[in-house]
Amino acid sequence: MHILIIGAAGMVGRKLTEALIAAGELGGKPITALTLADVEAPMLTLAPFHVSVVAADLSLPGAADVLVASRPDVIFHLAAIVSGEAEADFEKGYAINLDGTRLLFEAIRREGLVAPWCPRLVFTSSIAVFGTPLPASIPDDMAHTPLTSYGTQKAICELLLADYSRRGFFDGVGIRLPTIVVRPGAPNKAASGFFSGIIREPLNGVEAVLPVADDVRHWFSSPRSAVGFLIHAAELDAAALEQRRNLTMPGLSATIAEELAALERFGGKRVVALVRRAPDETIGRIVAGWPQNFSAQRALSLGFRAETSFDDIVRAHIEDELGGRVPLG
Amino acid sequence: MHILIIGAAGMVGRKLTEALIAAGELGGKPITALTLADVEAPMLTLAPFHVSVVAADLSLPGAADVLVASRPDVIFHLAAIVSGEAEADFEKGYAINLDGTRLLFEAIRREGLVAPWCPRLVFTSSIAVFGTPLPASIPDDMAHTPLTSYGTQKAICELLLADYSRRGFFDGVGIRLPTIVVRPGAPNKAASGFFSGIIREPLNGVEAVLPVADDVRHWFSSPRSAVGFLIHAAELDAAALEQRRNLTMPGLSATIAEELAALERFGGKRVVALVRRAPDETIGRIVAGWPQNFSAQRALSLGFRAETSFDDIVRAHIEDELGGRVPLG
Repeated sequence: MHILIIGAAGMVGRKLTEALIAAGELGGKPITALTLADVEAPMLTLAPFHVSVVAADLSLPGAADVLVASRPDVIFHLAAIVSGEAEADFEKGYAINLDGTRLLFEAIRREGLVAPWCPRLVFTSSIAVFGTPLPASIPDDMAHTPLTSYGTQKAICELLLADYSRRGFFDGVGIRLPTIVVRPGAPNKAASGFFSGIIREPLNGVEAVLPVADDVRHWFSSPRSAVGFLIHAAELDAAALEQRRNLTMPGLSATIAEELAALERFGGKRVVALVRRAPDETIGRIVAGWPQNFSAQRALSLGFRAETSFDDIVRAHIEDELGGRVPLG
Repeated sequence: MHILIIGAAGMVGRKLTEALIAAGELGGKPITALTLADVEAPMLTLAPFHVSVVAADLSLPGAADVLVASRPDVIFHLAAIVSGEAEADFEKGYAINLDGTRLLFEAIRREGLVAPWCPRLVFTSSIAVFGTPLPASIPDDMAHTPLTSYGTQKAICELLLADYSRRGFFDGVGIRLPTIVVRPGAPNKAASGFFSGIIREPLNGVEAVLPVADDVRHWFSSPRSAVGFLIHAAELDAAALEQRRNLTMPGLSATIAEELAALERFGGKRVVALVRRAPDETIGRIVAGWPQNFSAQRALSLGFRAETSFDDIVRAHIEDELGGRVPLG
């Protein structure tokens, strides 16, 4: 089985690569080749099968054709520019998040015209396809009314994925990821960054800023669950999806207060004291427009699983990033 | 006020043209110029203001730029290839229904970069954005899960319209039209054609085939109402739309039995006897996947109005197409 990961250099892409190499198989079939693609070539990784790395900008004509010429069995399409950048640069956002994806879909369709080929394609969408006003718990059949260009681009790619799959050009599954916490590494500039920061930094003995109130509620899963979603989406029987190939992934609906209580259970009062409250009205307004909870009934019934408490999320971070030990514990 | 109609040669485009010329104004402002565009130049129409006709294929680079260079105040974008053709020719459907619309939106955006310009843009979407399984009455916040490439293309254009409007590139309103009955003229090959045929043909003394059962329910409005929706969408205060600029238009949910009862009230038993039942399994299956009823609460609260009985629809046809007299009556 040959697997292609587009966007392999990102956080989720790297963790997916590690997981696939550790498993050595996908859906019960041994992995024989893995191609890792990103705008800049990902790091070459040692594996008991052939791994190749490719630098490819999907938004450039011809780039996708090169990627699909080897006819991989499974394609993970994770590549995108983030919400803030897509909002700041209208043309770049559409070029990469919409045109890049459409060029990939078209390259697969045209390759399939040469000789039959219908790969499983797993696409990471986002809960940014939803926009206020929203019910407290968002059902699976809620309309998409995105309030950002990023959310618009993801919603359009979902529609294309469903139509290309219905036509039999590929076998697509779109998954709407929750906000991923705890993201490892340095803080980034995403408005959602503090959700990870207030766990990650204090556990390392570093102060972290909390810009919103303790009763703010949001929708989370760990990086470990995100990788689990991707692998399950690649393995599941698409017949069960019928014509609705885009799914809101399960997650944990939790408040900042619940997040901090979990942090305290693992790190103690000394660690929680490193969270400094500094309300920021701009961030508060942005976050107020975000979804707080989803039913995710279809994904749950299809076997997708996420954390059910913030303790699980903090524990996954400590196990996967900190070698199982709390540095200050 | 300068108005541009793209897709002006189609049935709705021609009726909209007539209505605008008859009114001489839009939103209380006198019309000073009207530009009629279609793939082939529409018929030149006499009016007490300047009318120009343009042949333009929106899917060709540069065509939209020419249309927007005169900076109309209101743009009606009605141009599309129909559902059956978009399903039969995948590439043509995307080229015209998606790329054509996006090229128009981009041309407006770029013209606005030269000097500020934010026209009202009214776009005709379709209830084909909805796909089964559907509730008996479809709410305004129902997810779009189209089951055709045409529905996919319309749903994508709705998302683009909302994002371009949010960004201030134009002031867009998307309206999802019901199935239009009674369409004047010769029968066409649309699967929905019989809904019009079983009124239009018998009133002219001609037999019409009914391929589905009498209890089939669907969602209708007259051509007169469709024109009313377009004009109201051009005139309404967009502030009331907030961020949800795409609206399911009101309509009449009615069964074939109700349709035939209305026909009998206007034409008598002799006219209804011209409807010949010839069940067609293929058409029956297609129609079974179509929506039957909508709440259309938002559009109603914004002042859009449709017929409330099939008698109103038959009466509009007799008044607008038959000079107010039933030929066989």
